[in-house]
Amino acid sequence: MNQKKILLKDIAKKLNVSTTTVSFVLNGKGKEKKISDEVIKKIEDYVESINFRPNLVAQSLRTGKTKILVFMVEDISNYFFAKIARIIEDIAYSKGYKILFCSNENNDDRSRDLINLFSKLQVDGFIIIPSAGIKKDIENLIKNNIPVVLCDRHFPQLKTSYVVINNYEASKEATTHLINNGFKNIAFITTDVRQIQMLDRLKGYEKAIAEAGLKSTVLQIPFADTNSEKGRDMISCLFTENKELDAVFFSTNYLTQSGLEMIKETNPSLINTLGIITFDDNDLFRIYSPSISAVAQPLHQIGQELMNIMLNLLKDNNTNQLKQVTLKANLIIRNSSLRKN
Amino acid sequence: MNQKKILLKDIAKKLNVSTTTVSFVLNGKGKEKKISDEVIKKIEDYVESINFRPNLVAQSLRTGKTKILVFMVEDISNYFFAKIARIIEDIAYSKGYKILFCSNENNDDRSRDLINLFSKLQVDGFIIIPSAGIKKDIENLIKNNIPVVLCDRHFPQLKTSYVVINNYEASKEATTHLINNGFKNIAFITTDVRQIQMLDRLKGYEKAIAEAGLKSTVLQIPFADTNSEKGRDMISCLFTENKELDAVFFSTNYLTQSGLEMIKETNPSLINTLGIITFDDNDLFRIYSPSISAVAQPLHQIGQELMNIMLNLLKDNNTNQLKQVTLKANLIIRNSSLRKN
Repeated sequence: MNQKKILLKDIAKKLNVSTTTVSFVLNGKGKEKKISDEVIKKIEDYVESINFRPNLVAQSLRTGKTKILVFMVEDISNYFFAKIARIIEDIAYSKGYKILFCSNENNDDRSRDLINLFSKLQVDGFIIIPSAGIKKDIENLIKNNIPVVLCDRHFPQLKTSYVVINNYEASKEATTHLINNGFKNIAFITTDVRQIQMLDRLKGYEKAIAEAGLKSTVLQIPFADTNSEKGRDMISCLFTENKELDAVFFSTNYLTQSGLEMIKETNPSLINTLGIITFDDNDLFRIYSPSISAVAQPLHQIGQELMNIMLNLLKDNNTNQLKQVTLKANLIIRNSSLRKN
Repeated sequence: MNQKKILLKDIAKKLNVSTTTVSFVLNGKGKEKKISDEVIKKIEDYVESINFRPNLVAQSLRTGKTKILVFMVEDISNYFFAKIARIIEDIAYSKGYKILFCSNENNDDRSRDLINLFSKLQVDGFIIIPSAGIKKDIENLIKNNIPVVLCDRHFPQLKTSYVVINNYEASKEATTHLINNGFKNIAFITTDVRQIQMLDRLKGYEKAIAEAGLKSTVLQIPFADTNSEKGRDMISCLFTENKELDAVFFSTNYLTQSGLEMIKETNPSLINTLGIITFDDNDLFRIYSPSISAVAQPLHQIGQELMNIMLNLLKDNNTNQLKQVTLKANLIIRNSSLRKN
């Protein structure tokens, strides 16, 4: 039973009122326009009885606003992105905005497809964790005066608002903490992603290692293999081939997960002798045995700053106004990174 | 620099072609309509140069389709929901659909707000993990011939398509497994949510306990407190007040997390003597020490079935066609539920 498309004028005809009257009532302007309570009720009751759904975009053409924001992340099933998504969602909701989420898989084509879709939906603003090759697409949004805030990473040559953390310093601090706890052969396990946030974490590690006169050991796992058997095998081989390793610093939470899994499967006793730090915390790292030390990103603060910037851009309707925020990550020292014996 | 609204006819005028020609080209029908390659290129180049974004809803009015689906979950930051979201997203994407996610917090007002928003956006279909009081809203969507599939839970009195798991049997099996491993005082820790999936888990536990002639001990934590200090205190009190407890079955993964946290903080040795099973698996339960036994929902199968049903509804444009799927959860036996000496 397909319901026929019902238009304002059909409603007006049916109820013997003008189309304008119907339009005012459906837009909540009945009282303001001095339409009688009786007529307002008649229209509202009828509209409910036929399940009429006014067209949002027809509304947005009038107001110019859809009250919809987009948060595009790398992978919505990743703890870090999902938590920020939820924090942003709650703030947006309290301010009368809805947030739509989607994953771009750190893939440029998919990012572009999604940006095109949401542009067509005429959303009011974009919060984006960008893949590496979409600088031009972000630039186009800004040219079109659409509010954009980047998160987690940004394009150094592009003037955009963003919220990131001090990856370089945080990584250097964590590595130095391992060195201060007596570890001498510290591996850095990361991905091959050439984006600024990952490069900065690598540089921070290398700087601390160089300053201490130690030898750096870096494993870069192809992004596509980070959560696969192949990724775990690469981690396993690293330890087989470098017997002298006494600590490891994982550059993301999903790599830590693969690493813990590999240890559990192939060499369980290693968990008690190896120094371990992870970039990005997770509720379960706290309750693991040993509890896993983590460079924790300030998720609530990130979400709050992203929404502050976005709400300001929306209010001022001036996307040339830049705000670039770099927050400090917190090194949370737990048992896994403390001096052994 | 606000860009002026540019309309098809402005483009047509500028390029000295007809509005119809512009419309055909922008809708990818240039070749079909025998428009010359030269004109197609001219229009495409110009449109790109001015960053023109055709209006999706204008398109959808023509085709009646937006190619957008919604997946509304309880909490996008919960592992279980986020994983299914990601699986659905990948299937949808491969079929030419985009999926938008949002969290309803298991709250009826928020669910209703979101359903209204997406109805106005004229999305093609809804996959919903419903809060308890939105039966009528789901009913309205179906009346309007909008494809809906429910997930995780459903309304027994409402004729809808859904994908759920056999909560009762899975819970009974897990409890029986604990009993068979010598545990005699098994607590069931759950929420106060009165929805079918939670009630069935409780019933399955009670049935197994009754059949074995054991005493049931049930703790129901208010939903709002499940992830709070108060929730953890309630779990802690349960163990203080019931010294005889030798095993616990958590009805959701977030309750397990709170429980593990409480044990780690207040009584770490308990982790080795207590029998533990969780409903809903998590990558980290596998690598925990001891590894945590889990009733694992078949996430990929759930995602696949949801999308199969949705794609069929979309194809046939007949939302009266019901498909109700109940999948079997898998009891994954790990160390935490095995006989203690």
